[in-house]
Amino acid sequence: MQGQYRPLWLNENSALEVLDQRYLPHEKRVRVLKSGADAIEAISDMTVRGAGVIGNVAAMGVYLLAREFGDDKKRIREEAMKLRASRPTAVNLMWAVDRMLNVIEKSDDVLADAKAEAIAICDEDVKRSEAIGKIGCNIIEKIMEEKKLEKINILTHCNAGWLAIIDSGTALAPIYEAHKRGIDMHVWVDETRPRNQGANLTSWELSDAGIDHTIIADNTGGHLMQHDMVDMVITGADRVTRCGDAANKIGTYLKALAANDNGIPFYIALPLSTFDPESCNGVEEIEIEMRSEDEIHIMRGIDKEGKAQELRITPIGSKGANYGFDVTPARLITGLITEEGIIEPNETAIREIIL
Amino acid sequence: MQGQYRPLWLNENSALEVLDQRYLPHEKRVRVLKSGADAIEAISDMTVRGAGVIGNVAAMGVYLLAREFGDDKKRIREEAMKLRASRPTAVNLMWAVDRMLNVIEKSDDVLADAKAEAIAICDEDVKRSEAIGKIGCNIIEKIMEEKKLEKINILTHCNAGWLAIIDSGTALAPIYEAHKRGIDMHVWVDETRPRNQGANLTSWELSDAGIDHTIIADNTGGHLMQHDMVDMVITGADRVTRCGDAANKIGTYLKALAANDNGIPFYIALPLSTFDPESCNGVEEIEIEMRSEDEIHIMRGIDKEGKAQELRITPIGSKGANYGFDVTPARLITGLITEEGIIEPNETAIREIIL
Repeated sequence: MQGQYRPLWLNENSALEVLDQRYLPHEKRVRVLKSGADAIEAISDMTVRGAGVIGNVAAMGVYLLAREFGDDKKRIREEAMKLRASRPTAVNLMWAVDRMLNVIEKSDDVLADAKAEAIAICDEDVKRSEAIGKIGCNIIEKIMEEKKLEKINILTHCNAGWLAIIDSGTALAPIYEAHKRGIDMHVWVDETRPRNQGANLTSWELSDAGIDHTIIADNTGGHLMQHDMVDMVITGADRVTRCGDAANKIGTYLKALAANDNGIPFYIALPLSTFDPESCNGVEEIEIEMRSEDEIHIMRGIDKEGKAQELRITPIGSKGANYGFDVTPARLITGLITEEGIIEPNETAIREIIL
Repeated sequence: MQGQYRPLWLNENSALEVLDQRYLPHEKRVRVLKSGADAIEAISDMTVRGAGVIGNVAAMGVYLLAREFGDDKKRIREEAMKLRASRPTAVNLMWAVDRMLNVIEKSDDVLADAKAEAIAICDEDVKRSEAIGKIGCNIIEKIMEEKKLEKINILTHCNAGWLAIIDSGTALAPIYEAHKRGIDMHVWVDETRPRNQGANLTSWELSDAGIDHTIIADNTGGHLMQHDMVDMVITGADRVTRCGDAANKIGTYLKALAANDNGIPFYIALPLSTFDPESCNGVEEIEIEMRSEDEIHIMRGIDKEGKAQELRITPIGSKGANYGFDVTPARLITGLITEEGIIEPNETAIREIIL
């Protein structure tokens, strides 16, 4: 299942290989994951990231556990619980692990069934991503028609492209589809501090696809929206409650406020597996991951010789705080783009689709 | 006039010396400015920055022109016009140059009068900064009393401390005053991409003063406000219209939206010289400076040996756009903290004070 646009695949020895996203865009490194512990580490240290891909690697991680522990379902379950806790905000991670464990519970051939199920989870994502792309692109066309635009300006935050959800992402899937349809388009790419997923990953994906884009500081979107330079915002999500509140990369909420203040459509693109039927009020109920403050202090890049380096950018002695996500209340979201169509961000509409 | 907390002073040869703020916090370098051209360069390349200090250096720059061109008032005026255009958004810059030219116009002893006037402009800022500190600190005390807080959390964006306005800043002046009064306080410091004035300068100032603070990515403030972790926002401004719209560092508008959405007081601290009576609708009328896209691509810091280095953090080939400021509409501002008291952000209240 390796391909140009796949961030994970099984190698000839049926071990998992993943693109190490920490080194992009400056270096394309592959990391081999041979055990459940490897998968946990790769998720925790952000070798892999993005809602979908975290779920895929978690599913493959359970399959790796089956390789390690054979028929010992109890042991697999114990280890899988650690995998399930490796990133607290990602609901796909929990969903994927639970689905794998259900299959294993009933299985007579654990290894074969686990492998087949993990591959199925990945393959389903490919179809979902394609459907999200088509449905989202129809909205792009509609906005262009309504505003009589010859070229559309779309702003996105973080990375929800093929590096995050195979094969073309969630937020970027409509953009890739629009590119296929020959739509004239420009993408504002939020840098997305502190880990720079926009500057590092989204810009790298868009460059690769030949899509016109510009990297901006996360501070910039409000100004652009005030001056009619953004026609639409699309982001992904890590978890959306049954009432439509969306947890996504820290800073998404600020862009949603600015879009709302300037009458600009704000869409969130997600597979149905990202819905969390257990929660309603996202601000109160979703646990927000705090990551290492090193991400605030240390910046990665390449020096004049093109060599990867790290620099400290803050004064020694100043503290940093690194909240990974924020919650955008449903009232600020225009619509949820899913593989089953556009859903209004409210409990009635969401329940109809997911329950 | 050199002092520990002065970013500019005249040396023994009556040339201007400035702290080169581009190298902070990692290195304390002084740059000597001997001519009007030197002053223009120092303002354009951000050796000096911050509304007040730009005005001070511009005033001193006109004095340096008087040193160069003696009694040739016409030449001084011509060169001063270039100085006046060296940063488009800073209204203090234009105000200071105009005031210097007025004095020179009427002077019989250009050099002595220019020098005295430039020093007077600086000395007046010291008094203004002190008054802003006291008036702003009274608001801090009032908020603590109303919310029954034992410790107050204040968020600030960019740097409006003594590096920006002598001797204790505008936004930071109330914080310094609160520290003097023994108020228990913690400051959230927005990193302030792309130039990191928060992470580099504000955190350096606060460390130096022993004030508890934490650096955060610019994306973080909304989340903190949703979770009651911010009691008040104070920023500076580069220009405030007679109707109360405030141009300040890019991203200020996003924080104002979040404060408004969460019922948190949002104050702008400024000397009266920052008001621009000529403009009303800030979004439409204030020209926003676009700076080099290198600021998006290149990050400065220190390597493991403590040596200053630069890294490229974006993919080669991706474009960047670097808007320096945005405009926060008056409707999102709780009050304007000036040396003459708190002013409501509307035309009637502002006219009463400045016209």
